[in-house]
Amino acid sequence: MSEPELDPVAGFSCGLDATLRIISGKWKPLILYFLRQGPNRYGELKRAVRGVSDKVLIQQLKELEADGVLIRHDYREVPPRVDYALTPLGEGLAEALRPLCEWGSANLEAVAKVLAERAKWSDAA
Amino acid sequence: MSEPELDPVAGFSCGLDATLRIISGKWKPLILYFLRQGPNRYGELKRAVRGVSDKVLIQQLKELEADGVLIRHDYREVPPRVDYALTPLGEGLAEALRPLCEWGSANLEAVAKVLAERAKWSDAA
Repeated sequence: MSEPELDPVAGFSCGLDATLRIISGKWKPLILYFLRQGPNRYGELKRAVRGVSDKVLIQQLKELEADGVLIRHDYREVPPRVDYALTPLGEGLAEALRPLCEWGSANLEAVAKVLAERAKWSDAA
Repeated sequence: MSEPELDPVAGFSCGLDATLRIISGKWKPLILYFLRQGPNRYGELKRAVRGVSDKVLIQQLKELEADGVLIRHDYREVPPRVDYALTPLGEGLAEALRPLCEWGSANLEAVAKVLAERAKWSDAA
């Protein structure tokens, strides 16, 4: 990994800074992660990315499409059939998210504890 | 990596979902990344995480400390000396961010192009 001091390219403080410009957006990492399994229809994505509204999911999909990390395919059928798949750029990005999935799975208990603590604090406030 | 369908533990849709609960926050991934190099004084962090205000940086550091991923050490000196270091939990998390740094460094040009496109669209709007 490059050191931040050595890599102040194109206005980014480091490679991670550049990546975050693409995946910033509450649901974007999850969208990319679920699309790693292959093309997904809208309804499947919506069920996988739990808790997102249609408005926000559609907006984030549009942004990811405009950014060149996924492709929307409309089969022009009735009833409508539309699916989403990663581009090669998006594939690499989704792959780079894998260790974060693994960290979360390995530390589920610690994270659940953290969230319980946060809830206590916000209840007390 | 576990499949989302097989891993709906503790209210998380997958391990990534759990991780995102910890690193959500515009500057948190960058803070963790810069702390990977070792303990950092506040001023160093501020310079590394470019563009963040004191108010927001202090808030995000407090949240990460409360979540158990970093430790704040006040040396009780005059002038004040305070530094921040990752806990073992935070070390693992910061390490898991490494492929995202690498992806960004490898795709700096593509990302810069994406941002230039976005700027065009927002100018046109």
